Amino acid sequence: MAVIVPFESQPAGSIDQLVELVAADMERVNATILSRTGSDVTMIPEVANHLISSGGKRLRPMLTLAMANLAGYAGEGHVKLAASVEFMHTATLLHDDVVDESELRRGRLSARMVWGNEASVLVGDFLLGQAFRMMVEVGSLRALDILSSAAATIAEGEVMQLAAAKNTATTEDEYLAVIRGKTAELFAAACEVGPVLGGRPKAEQTAAASFGMNLGIAFQLVDDVLDYGGKSAKLGKNVGDDFREGKITLPVVLAFRRGNDVEREFWVRALEQGKIGDNDLNHAIGLMTKHRALEDTLNRAHHYGAMAVDALALFPPSPMKGALEQVVAFCLARSH
Amino acid sequence: MAVIVPFESQPAGSIDQLVELVAADMERVNATILSRTGSDVTMIPEVANHLISSGGKRLRPMLTLAMANLAGYAGEGHVKLAASVEFMHTATLLHDDVVDESELRRGRLSARMVWGNEASVLVGDFLLGQAFRMMVEVGSLRALDILSSAAATIAEGEVMQLAAAKNTATTEDEYLAVIRGKTAELFAAACEVGPVLGGRPKAEQTAAASFGMNLGIAFQLVDDVLDYGGKSAKLGKNVGDDFREGKITLPVVLAFRRGNDVEREFWVRALEQGKIGDNDLNHAIGLMTKHRALEDTLNRAHHYGAMAVDALALFPPSPMKGALEQVVAFCLARSH
Repeated sequence: MAVIVPFESQPAGSIDQLVELVAADMERVNATILSRTGSDVTMIPEVANHLISSGGKRLRPMLTLAMANLAGYAGEGHVKLAASVEFMHTATLLHDDVVDESELRRGRLSARMVWGNEASVLVGDFLLGQAFRMMVEVGSLRALDILSSAAATIAEGEVMQLAAAKNTATTEDEYLAVIRGKTAELFAAACEVGPVLGGRPKAEQTAAASFGMNLGIAFQLVDDVLDYGGKSAKLGKNVGDDFREGKITLPVVLAFRRGNDVEREFWVRALEQGKIGDNDLNHAIGLMTKHRALEDTLNRAHHYGAMAVDALALFPPSPMKGALEQVVAFCLARSH
Repeated sequence: MAVIVPFESQPAGSIDQLVELVAADMERVNATILSRTGSDVTMIPEVANHLISSGGKRLRPMLTLAMANLAGYAGEGHVKLAASVEFMHTATLLHDDVVDESELRRGRLSARMVWGNEASVLVGDFLLGQAFRMMVEVGSLRALDILSSAAATIAEGEVMQLAAAKNTATTEDEYLAVIRGKTAELFAAACEVGPVLGGRPKAEQTAAASFGMNLGIAFQLVDDVLDYGGKSAKLGKNVGDDFREGKITLPVVLAFRRGNDVEREFWVRALEQGKIGDNDLNHAIGLMTKHRALEDTLNRAHHYGAMAVDALALFPPSPMKGALEQVVAFCLARSH
């Protein structure tokens, strides 16, 4: 089954330029990640590295490195903050898999399937603790404030999603509040600490945060579309996971609001009551196509992507700035 | 069924003096706890307050206040640090209940039984994030270092316990390492930040940490004994919970090592294989009594209690110091 999504004419975008520009720093981040997952309790590096070494793009720590570079930061702290950001992300994934009862993550068995829910919860807690230790070592109270606030907001967004789960009456605004918290906030924090470390003016800190926030929203919306089609193999999850888990995402919100009573009954039965038959995923995709729900979710994603690019405007042209613009295009282009 | 435990001649100890001396500060801690569990996401205060308002003694935050007072600290930071310590503790309990699949906590249904594992994991994460935010607001990097290191060590101790779970061959040293991590480290950190805030010499910081560490070990060992008898109603858990969950605690370690082959087979069957019959808890308590395992666990607890009291020696006599000595006696006296 294929979903036709538009924007084939957009530039594909690439993260290659970013990867290249931060390569030297990223090697040190990876070494830090490896050493900070170390523990005499062997289960900790096993669980942590199962996920950390599973081929994620490490986009978030790269953003921290890139923003520190863009801010002209010449110190060492960005390496530890980038590693902290990746640990916070990994901890969130470990806990998410327990919350969602996920069996797969990035195409491999999730940690909880191999070591159990207990280990996933506790190793997540360990990584969060280690993340904070590294931040403290860097010694910037403002960076600590940004990242610890993000930690609380991420959890808040996840609880919000839990409360909204299976509620087909969720509005677009409510959904946006959820993904700002659970996804975009960490992108924003990862970016904001760059100019903070560099001692740059408040306007640049805000611009970096805004870039990250809008990129994060765009990233999540494209993810939502991919769950109803697209390159599932690359994602390491199956098309239809969100549907089977009763997750309310923007394509559902739009299709539900634009649908008639019979269609709404279908969404309620499938997502709220969890009564899903063999052909229901196809039917759901059909309804989304009919109401242009996937296409418009991508339109929304492009809106946030444009805001991300504009947020960078006050930085002078540079290869790094160009690389960050390319990242936006890349995140949007994942959908085709 | 009753377990005869010795030390009836010891002074009973009390936390009343401590409660009285920190009452004014504790009111502000409680107000802080209440305001920092606030969220527009109503499930967060519901879950958090279910546990926070369930009548725990709040011993850990009281220790932070007491140690700050002992150190002559005259600022405001100890209130937020005390609230942080309670949030870290609450987050740990929420996650522990998920890990242990506990149904009761302090005599009430555990949060996971009311709101599910998902909410318990995520609200725990939220409280951890809020704890770090408050610490950052206080602005002491050294206090941040102590508490964030504790967070990582606590999780490490819990994973260690998970790995040692149901392993009857656990040694006393291994078990001590587990409870140092999962219980005593937070007591130590809660105490150490007092003289840190007060800008007191390193020797006093170390003394405070040592007091907390040894008190925490004694506290946990008494808890272990109580699980095989004692005032279960007060604990809000049932006698035999550790046994039914296959938890290896010091009474088991001692009884196993001192037992004969037939007895060891019993422990392996009950705790490793989880095959527990109606009379097996009684049999276990009988074996512990025969080998003086409960009595000697309490002897060990008294050893650590004595170390805690001696750690306070370098502080001049004061009502607060007297109150802290009373707390040690109180923790030990819980067993009879």
